[in-house]
Amino acid sequence: MTDDTMNGAESLVKTLLASGVEVCFTNPGTSEMHFVAALDHVAGMRSVLALQEGVATGAADGYYRMAGKPASTLLHLGPGLANGLSNLHNAKKAGSGVVNIIGEHAPSHIELDAPLTSDIEGIARPVSHWVRTSPTSTTVGQDAADAVQAAMTAPGQIASLILPSDTAWTDGGVPQDALAVPAPQPFDDSILEQAAQALDGPETLLLLGGGALTEANLKTAGRIAAKTGCKLLSEWANARLERGAGRVVVGRVPYPIDIALKVLEPYKRIVLLGARAPIGFFAYPGMPAVLTREGAEILKLADGGADLTGALDALCAATGATDTPPAHVAEAELPDRPEGTINLDNLAAVIARAIPENGIVVDESITTGRAFFPVTKGAPKHDWLNNCGGSIGYGMPVAIGAAVACPDRKVLALLGDGSAMYTVQALWTMARENLDITVLIFANRSYKILRGELTNVGVSNPGPRALDMLSLDRPAIDWVQMARSMGVEAEQVTECEALEAAMDEGLSGSGPRLIEVML
Amino acid sequence: MTDDTMNGAESLVKTLLASGVEVCFTNPGTSEMHFVAALDHVAGMRSVLALQEGVATGAADGYYRMAGKPASTLLHLGPGLANGLSNLHNAKKAGSGVVNIIGEHAPSHIELDAPLTSDIEGIARPVSHWVRTSPTSTTVGQDAADAVQAAMTAPGQIASLILPSDTAWTDGGVPQDALAVPAPQPFDDSILEQAAQALDGPETLLLLGGGALTEANLKTAGRIAAKTGCKLLSEWANARLERGAGRVVVGRVPYPIDIALKVLEPYKRIVLLGARAPIGFFAYPGMPAVLTREGAEILKLADGGADLTGALDALCAATGATDTPPAHVAEAELPDRPEGTINLDNLAAVIARAIPENGIVVDESITTGRAFFPVTKGAPKHDWLNNCGGSIGYGMPVAIGAAVACPDRKVLALLGDGSAMYTVQALWTMARENLDITVLIFANRSYKILRGELTNVGVSNPGPRALDMLSLDRPAIDWVQMARSMGVEAEQVTECEALEAAMDEGLSGSGPRLIEVML
Repeated sequence: MTDDTMNGAESLVKTLLASGVEVCFTNPGTSEMHFVAALDHVAGMRSVLALQEGVATGAADGYYRMAGKPASTLLHLGPGLANGLSNLHNAKKAGSGVVNIIGEHAPSHIELDAPLTSDIEGIARPVSHWVRTSPTSTTVGQDAADAVQAAMTAPGQIASLILPSDTAWTDGGVPQDALAVPAPQPFDDSILEQAAQALDGPETLLLLGGGALTEANLKTAGRIAAKTGCKLLSEWANARLERGAGRVVVGRVPYPIDIALKVLEPYKRIVLLGARAPIGFFAYPGMPAVLTREGAEILKLADGGADLTGALDALCAATGATDTPPAHVAEAELPDRPEGTINLDNLAAVIARAIPENGIVVDESITTGRAFFPVTKGAPKHDWLNNCGGSIGYGMPVAIGAAVACPDRKVLALLGDGSAMYTVQALWTMARENLDITVLIFANRSYKILRGELTNVGVSNPGPRALDMLSLDRPAIDWVQMARSMGVEAEQVTECEALEAAMDEGLSGSGPRLIEVML
Repeated sequence: MTDDTMNGAESLVKTLLASGVEVCFTNPGTSEMHFVAALDHVAGMRSVLALQEGVATGAADGYYRMAGKPASTLLHLGPGLANGLSNLHNAKKAGSGVVNIIGEHAPSHIELDAPLTSDIEGIARPVSHWVRTSPTSTTVGQDAADAVQAAMTAPGQIASLILPSDTAWTDGGVPQDALAVPAPQPFDDSILEQAAQALDGPETLLLLGGGALTEANLKTAGRIAAKTGCKLLSEWANARLERGAGRVVVGRVPYPIDIALKVLEPYKRIVLLGARAPIGFFAYPGMPAVLTREGAEILKLADGGADLTGALDALCAATGATDTPPAHVAEAELPDRPEGTINLDNLAAVIARAIPENGIVVDESITTGRAFFPVTKGAPKHDWLNNCGGSIGYGMPVAIGAAVACPDRKVLALLGDGSAMYTVQALWTMARENLDITVLIFANRSYKILRGELTNVGVSNPGPRALDMLSLDRPAIDWVQMARSMGVEAEQVTECEALEAAMDEGLSGSGPRLIEVML
């Protein structure tokens, strides 16, 4: 049944709302003006403006991780989508659901090959699980409902809906009710017994990822570990890991190949539960990319899209651990209060002492942050979010999405300076929305990780021109001025005491704050 | 013949240099480390670091426009390419040649589906004329030579060469000599006489674009106009238009549909020479997208990839205008010196009086700049560069490329605040390379063009939530602090006299300077 008083744009917004999509991270243009207008006609959608689309798509990633349901993005044609592409890559790898709404020229205008014409489906496909172009205003509602359903397919998918401008402005829109959320895939029941028997002591590893990393699921994993003596680890990058005092704590497979090989060497049998078999981030000449010991038996009980709670519960029952008190429950313990000039060692202690109860830590600290994880395990309960796709510039946008999803929680973003510059426009959105985000910029003034990578790939004695490409100190970026230019209060610290005070102020106040940590 | 002492990365750099590619705009990562290292082993390539890849690709666009030959980019896997995609879209639409070098995992690592794995060819294809993945270190040299040849195909093409990391680090590299630059396509000789006869008075238009807009070619067009009485126009967006006192001056087809329709209404016959038939940037409900009068005869003598000098010379001869003095030669004349608070009217006059001899004007001034063009026609000789693809954020990157290509010329970038924020990281590269760029930011603190577009698409009385998506004043961006945070000296002006003094200082000094013009 069509409605001659409702255009396609309004049917879109109504359908998204009916499907539970309540937030739109946007940077619209001419072809999206009717969707912008529909936001006034239809109440209920929170629109958050970003000054570059990478901020919008990264925010949608962070929103999904914390809200457990997708936000929408509203992007301007192919180039607007293109600007958001790398953070969609990260979202895809994190298993985050996102509903991209991408404006397109009307078909009569595509024929003319106007300047902004591009192959939008072609641009969308490499980062999307689901791509569709809506043909008419009457189909927009159904397509939007389908897009949300696709985005909510476990663990979360990227759905890209392309809407030609005439589908927005033409009447005949048909809003749709929400479709059913697809059930996750069943885990591999056929190897349950084998997996349960494989976990028989310290030479076996239960490797956890994705939805297995909730507090409740980790508790189950802790029971299994206590009963069987198996070890627990999570992947290097986790979309969301619930941790802190009182929770079952798991370490991560390390990033550096040599250390990862050592950590994984003991394990003859590995059961995968929402995790993938450990591999290196990059290939290096003459080094292995598969990080598990040769001949290790790898049992994939459940991948990221499977029913991970069900899999853990079943594994727990099969190992007879249902009533076993969980192992590895972190005690509430904080490192001693550090003093003096900040360095890589005492920095972790300052952060561990500052993490607030129920805080959300968005970690893009790259080299600086490798020591943070063990030291923070006894901090108050918090969630720890990693970059799962490796495209840097995810941190501030994801922090925005997390803060929008959880207005009652504090967000702490830990960022390398090189990474933060990719999506620096995010600071403006933080100020505009007065989001409770405390941003730490670790100012080592280099792409420091690449200094190590030069050695890893076999380049010895790199010359000055090579090193110059990895250096950010000419000129040095003044993060305090940068933040203030976009309305975010900021300060620079060199001493532990000053960092402690600044974090306390940032995390206890409302709105964003940036702290430039000199290293 | 393979060389066991040279790896693929070195053969790449040697081949690029042999092919005339002397500049690399880059943001490398681990998979590109051997290429970075090769920059030390092989002398001659200027590497310019960008903090976000949109700066690198936009700079390559600007470089081609001014140098007439391609620069290379060095991008990190799919996400690095993705970040540069929208400015590659602009470069493609401008007819700029670019050689993208995109790192990729070694095949053994792609199989493992590592976090940064993506469909790089799929991401590249929508913005590229030529895409290839090199299979081995021995093929890198030939593929690089092919890529440069593709990029130099008239008017200029986007070539994307994907190099798996093992092709870089493995020995056996074979550097190649330059391939021949492909000749431009011949113009449509079969309609030459028809075109010459069509140009018979003020109801006929010679519409010029691309390579037809050089000083020499415009002089030929001026002869034809003088002889036949035809009118001359260029497209709305031109990659590079040589203009100013002493040159044949042409106006542009206006952006607003209603004004464009009026300007084009008189023309019953239109000869296209490097230009496309005029169409609207966007489709609007109930408005025409084709801007020429109904029934207008359109004769396409030569498209952007054709021999435009040959076409103009032939047309000049066919109209008997070879010895006719050109019409429309601009006299050296400047507007009166304006005083008082800056507004849209007097702003154009200040700029016209400031344009230096041989200056390069990069125009992304959007709504603010619509009055600049007529007023500046009598300024000293200069080049005027437009955004041809419509994806905003092209201005500062293109200014970087132009400044690198022309170190002896001054670059003046005219930017809307909304546009400039897309690629604001460009300021850092300007400071790092000490480029002679004076940046004017027109701070109307809104996406002002979209306010008009709301009306154009038929949205009357937009509500507060719609208008909020077009507003940049909450918070206001402090461009002076923004520039200084990245090492660029800056000031804010509200008076014509202050703007004049600031532009004089910016254009007479060395290195970059930013002026925030309050509107």
